[in-house]
Amino acid sequence: MAESIAKSANAAFSLLKTLSNDQRTDALTKIHAALQAGKDDILKANKIDMENAEQAGLPSSLIKRLDLSNSGKFDSMLQGILDVARLEDPVGKVTLAKKLDEGLNLYRISAPIGVLLIIFESRPEVIANITALAIKSGNSAILKGGKESYQTFKIMSEIVSSTLQAQTAVPSDAIQLIQSRNEVGDLLLQDQYIDLVIPRGSNELVRNIKSNTKIPVMGHADGICSIYVDQDFDVAKATRIAVDSKTNYPAGCNAVEQLLIHKSIDDAKVQAVVGGLVDAGVTVHVTPEVKAKLGSLNQDYVVDVVDDSFDKEYLSFDISVKYVDSVEAAIEHINIHSSKHTDCIITENKDTADKFLKAIDSAGVYWNCSTRFADGFRYGFGTEVGISTNKIHARGPVGLEGLMSYQYQLKGDGHIVGEYVGGGGNKLYVHEDL
Amino acid sequence: MAESIAKSANAAFSLLKTLSNDQRTDALTKIHAALQAGKDDILKANKIDMENAEQAGLPSSLIKRLDLSNSGKFDSMLQGILDVARLEDPVGKVTLAKKLDEGLNLYRISAPIGVLLIIFESRPEVIANITALAIKSGNSAILKGGKESYQTFKIMSEIVSSTLQAQTAVPSDAIQLIQSRNEVGDLLLQDQYIDLVIPRGSNELVRNIKSNTKIPVMGHADGICSIYVDQDFDVAKATRIAVDSKTNYPAGCNAVEQLLIHKSIDDAKVQAVVGGLVDAGVTVHVTPEVKAKLGSLNQDYVVDVVDDSFDKEYLSFDISVKYVDSVEAAIEHINIHSSKHTDCIITENKDTADKFLKAIDSAGVYWNCSTRFADGFRYGFGTEVGISTNKIHARGPVGLEGLMSYQYQLKGDGHIVGEYVGGGGNKLYVHEDL
Repeated sequence: MAESIAKSANAAFSLLKTLSNDQRTDALTKIHAALQAGKDDILKANKIDMENAEQAGLPSSLIKRLDLSNSGKFDSMLQGILDVARLEDPVGKVTLAKKLDEGLNLYRISAPIGVLLIIFESRPEVIANITALAIKSGNSAILKGGKESYQTFKIMSEIVSSTLQAQTAVPSDAIQLIQSRNEVGDLLLQDQYIDLVIPRGSNELVRNIKSNTKIPVMGHADGICSIYVDQDFDVAKATRIAVDSKTNYPAGCNAVEQLLIHKSIDDAKVQAVVGGLVDAGVTVHVTPEVKAKLGSLNQDYVVDVVDDSFDKEYLSFDISVKYVDSVEAAIEHINIHSSKHTDCIITENKDTADKFLKAIDSAGVYWNCSTRFADGFRYGFGTEVGISTNKIHARGPVGLEGLMSYQYQLKGDGHIVGEYVGGGGNKLYVHEDL
Repeated sequence: MAESIAKSANAAFSLLKTLSNDQRTDALTKIHAALQAGKDDILKANKIDMENAEQAGLPSSLIKRLDLSNSGKFDSMLQGILDVARLEDPVGKVTLAKKLDEGLNLYRISAPIGVLLIIFESRPEVIANITALAIKSGNSAILKGGKESYQTFKIMSEIVSSTLQAQTAVPSDAIQLIQSRNEVGDLLLQDQYIDLVIPRGSNELVRNIKSNTKIPVMGHADGICSIYVDQDFDVAKATRIAVDSKTNYPAGCNAVEQLLIHKSIDDAKVQAVVGGLVDAGVTVHVTPEVKAKLGSLNQDYVVDVVDDSFDKEYLSFDISVKYVDSVEAAIEHINIHSSKHTDCIITENKDTADKFLKAIDSAGVYWNCSTRFADGFRYGFGTEVGISTNKIHARGPVGLEGLMSYQYQLKGDGHIVGEYVGGGGNKLYVHEDL
């Protein structure tokens, strides 16, 4: 079953790849209209999911994420489809053009990757988002949602599928929505047909997927972000940045988890920054050296570090705090302990900042601003496919570009290698940019 | 042992990443001079490897590849180091610059990937080539060569290592040369410290590595390339392209393995193309339909296809031949049976060519030229890291660019997410290109 799903998605990709931007965009418009027309049915199904979730005693945060009727969520989900439809065509862009010899020209052309497997948890709006992104970029997508959104998922899936089939040039196998949880494991084995897995959900989900597939995975298994407060720093900036990075949305992968403070900073300033966090309700996990300098800080919010305090993603109102001897020591600590997501330096000294920016090996390296900016929407990518801590292909917040690969087109007129140097002949390559 | 190698390579990367282009380039110059000075010792060691290989009865093609004394090979190996040294600095290129708001600017900067594990077979010149590419691009590299080149490898490794240590800013752990075969398996497990594996050698080597690691692998496990001869074609071009693609270097991954012929082409023309291959000493593996049209062709070179004839990489003077009904049928066949390396159409009809170029999902899609052009040197990339049939990161022939990733730098002045729309505040992002 998993194999036939993957195989048919791959066959559909072969056709989808040849469609024009107009054909792909038209399909999005049709899907938008069909989902709009089905609004009542979708919200009815969504209500059943919510009731089931309540009866099952699922946490209210999860139920809230399920809810499509909430404050214009349905409309903004539909608007998202039109936003993607209006994006510039990402397919067929020429990114290199080179004359190899008279009449022999090489072009590098942006092209879709192939078949994407998207695995997500409760948010049903991901269906619309990913369907739009995949079709726009010419990729096939297999979508697997969480069981909590089963009813919503089912009806949206039927609408998307029947619309593609009846009204568009996009083959309906290009977007397949999988409802059974059992198939995920088998799908992860289809590396012959699936080119990229994109998990959207908890870190646990991502980590689990990464250890169960040979297919490349685009996602972050951890978001252990750090802030280093240098000796030449502004107390007010440091405090507001630390508080925002920690408390704006602590469950986000771009929330800060550890604070490194230059050891020469005087106690009053350390107390101001750490106190700012405590005042915002953050529990600070501190080393003995830091603890000794905290003076009259509310001890209810001060605990001692333990063994793994600097290798841990709290995702809560908690942060680990330690001293470092220098910017070099901060860099060394971060390159070892961070998850290479986003790390920040607070300093007024440009040379120190440059040293930090150059040495830190993370997707995002920040100077005097909140780690929470690490996000596709904030970066202006319009729409976000996910955030990647991989070091190949796409890194950091990933927009539509992350769903694209490229191909080389070589156009000749009977040219053969045997006539050129290196292939047995004497002709030389020209290698001129076109 | 493997863990400590990988860990120290990773630590060295942290330092290497901060070095200037001058420092990296200077290290290449010093290595060049040291290898030049060690020429006699290296050739002496190389001679021992050759004698051992001869005594062990290894094939002469392998012994030839081992030989560094052969026709200026040593000098061109050394010249290669200087060529790489002279390339433009690939590190720190700004590929995106965007103002998010007043005083909050985002930059995307090219950056090295991290730690590369390069596994290669007999050619000792790969040591010089990869050492140069890695240092120039700011990546650490762990190199593992074949046991046939043990002595050459050992002395070159000592020279590189002592030169880095005594004369350069590049930490000597940035280039580590591993001599024991046993460690490869363990190194492939070090996904915490190694970012990319690049196997250079036989397809068997690559396939074996791909099934034994979670680290991304850049390489091609197969090179099943096809040529489709369309009905509107030029017999002379088709013949010379087919013969060159098959016979110029049949062991190459870019050699053609199958020929698809439009069924409406008349017998005389089919005989001309297939006869051209036979005249060049190629055995044609044909379907019954093709066989019926071959007339008086030398039957010694004609055999029947078997079950896997169209899923097979011959790497020899053999090719599978069949009829297809249309360009669409050719496209379908190729998208299923090719290894997505390089596929070619022979046609004088631009519309048919465009259809083929757009529909084929391979790294290289060619029109009227030999598949053998799929090569970094021929593409003008100066130096080749390898050829990739992956669909993410680098695809096709890979130059220095394939060893690069990027990082996002965000520079602010106390900016926090909480003040902006989406983060709890009212400020709007500007998102202007800088």
